[in-house]
Amino acid sequence: MNAQYQRIVLASRPSGEVTPENFRLETVPVPTIADGQVLIRNHFLSLDPYMRVRMDDVKNYAAPQALNETMIGGTVGEIVASNNPQFQIGDKVIGMMGWAEMGVSDGTLLRKLDTTHIPLSAYLGAVGMPGMTAWYGLTQIMQAKEGETIVVSAASGAVGSVVGQLAKLRGCRAVGIAGGAEKCAYVVNELGFDACIDYKVGNLEDQLAAATPNGIDAIFENVGGASFDACLARVNPFARIALCGMIAGYDGGDMSIHNARMLLSMRVTLRGFIISEHLDLWPQGLRELGILVAQNKLKFRESIAPNLAAAPEAFIGLLKGKNLGKQLVRLIP
Amino acid sequence: MNAQYQRIVLASRPSGEVTPENFRLETVPVPTIADGQVLIRNHFLSLDPYMRVRMDDVKNYAAPQALNETMIGGTVGEIVASNNPQFQIGDKVIGMMGWAEMGVSDGTLLRKLDTTHIPLSAYLGAVGMPGMTAWYGLTQIMQAKEGETIVVSAASGAVGSVVGQLAKLRGCRAVGIAGGAEKCAYVVNELGFDACIDYKVGNLEDQLAAATPNGIDAIFENVGGASFDACLARVNPFARIALCGMIAGYDGGDMSIHNARMLLSMRVTLRGFIISEHLDLWPQGLRELGILVAQNKLKFRESIAPNLAAAPEAFIGLLKGKNLGKQLVRLIP
Repeated sequence: MNAQYQRIVLASRPSGEVTPENFRLETVPVPTIADGQVLIRNHFLSLDPYMRVRMDDVKNYAAPQALNETMIGGTVGEIVASNNPQFQIGDKVIGMMGWAEMGVSDGTLLRKLDTTHIPLSAYLGAVGMPGMTAWYGLTQIMQAKEGETIVVSAASGAVGSVVGQLAKLRGCRAVGIAGGAEKCAYVVNELGFDACIDYKVGNLEDQLAAATPNGIDAIFENVGGASFDACLARVNPFARIALCGMIAGYDGGDMSIHNARMLLSMRVTLRGFIISEHLDLWPQGLRELGILVAQNKLKFRESIAPNLAAAPEAFIGLLKGKNLGKQLVRLIP
Repeated sequence: MNAQYQRIVLASRPSGEVTPENFRLETVPVPTIADGQVLIRNHFLSLDPYMRVRMDDVKNYAAPQALNETMIGGTVGEIVASNNPQFQIGDKVIGMMGWAEMGVSDGTLLRKLDTTHIPLSAYLGAVGMPGMTAWYGLTQIMQAKEGETIVVSAASGAVGSVVGQLAKLRGCRAVGIAGGAEKCAYVVNELGFDACIDYKVGNLEDQLAAATPNGIDAIFENVGGASFDACLARVNPFARIALCGMIAGYDGGDMSIHNARMLLSMRVTLRGFIISEHLDLWPQGLRELGILVAQNKLKFRESIAPNLAAAPEAFIGLLKGKNLGKQLVRLIP
């Protein structure tokens, strides 16, 4: 009998909220690698909101996740067999191996990692795609300048936490929006935001007004919905909006912008973006983020599901905001 | 008895739709001009949708129109008395003299006009603020390129008509949206758009799909509402949107963008703008527009109300889309 590993495939598309039944855990044989290929033992899987979008069969920036195929996902792991001279057994790598304990690659889109000063898992978070998403939105779209006020939703998450910390390093007033007292305390006390609004209690508009006395110069939007409209009501002239996500609508809910009047009257620039389309800036961004993490100037937390079987529940929790910081799945004992 | 002239002041703010009672026609004495001032006899008043926004007392890019003061508005006219060495009697000028037959100015924001090749009224239209609005949106925000498909709403209006013609000159496919068969025929047959969709008949989505077989690369939005959402549903990746107006919501109606999902999934750049904030580009834009009008490569029509007393009705008609082309008010017999 060959060695086996586990993977999770998309069993069915959700109608509304994601359920555990949308996924299926499978045990499959470890493949034999061909010339030029490597076999990777994944250590961590990244869970990210974009996966919810791919589960639907709608026009989007990327093809939908195929049914009965391994769920898409970023992974970090270790080379355990190599027929590719560019990778040696023991090399740590990041790739898109999906929701699976192992994966085969010809080296395309596989990148070797240096874990001397940066923990392996951080390459899926602050020094990876979420960190780059924050860095790109803040530096390229929001162009946040010293003294300006920025607001970021999902502020305790993998992306939002980096947006606010980078804004503080630039001398901005950073205001977060998050759900629950624990997350807000973390955002202010550990991450150093100036304020964090708990959208689950009190009046959102009043809290936002108190936290942004000089209005809002730039928004990093992860959520959409009521909190985005409340932010729009307070934008200053020439505000910039990095539209990164609208997670409030991913389950088929309303994705309207009701306060669109402000886009016009305040001459706002709004830009939707997908970080994988800006690969030219990754070397610069990741270098800056890596230095900040190594110097402990950029802090992060992780919520780690214990094994692949726990991934669906962790993913559903992520969509409901149950995680704090970067949501990962541990794939090794 | 001194000579007198007529003006129209804002009598009350509208609650919802504008009514004639929101205005008051007054007869006032012609003032004596001081040192440095000129007296202008206005020939034409420009009526524009932005005036509706100023009639409300809400946070906006400019202060609200004051009650009991002359309504704001652009005018072209002739110097009839001058204590300013820069202006001679008989000079044709453009300024912001408001809804009034005469006006006094110290020369600030007053510009002399050359009517050798361009009719005076065109400086309020294709070679004026509406033309510049179209030029800026198309060249600076939409950055329309040869072979791309652009869509413009209120396509038969003073701004929309220029957007489409400039797009055609750049080799784009230009699609208009307008209300009624007469306007659509004008847009296609006289202005040379590739297609024009009558939003008052048939299914908007189906017509738009037929007119934009390759999707939409850029939108010039004057209206908002259902037609904007229908356009958003067909945008291509990296579409650009010049958000110039949302006239569908100016009377207090819904200004939501319901299809905001597309802003994210298609990585759209949307920018609200006010042409008066980009004065640095006016010389370049007006020069280009003036040449095109003088060469008859840029066509326009005008709807002209016969006198100042007819201005309120003409303005209300403009907001309801009753005009074709540039809406003016004639102020001389």
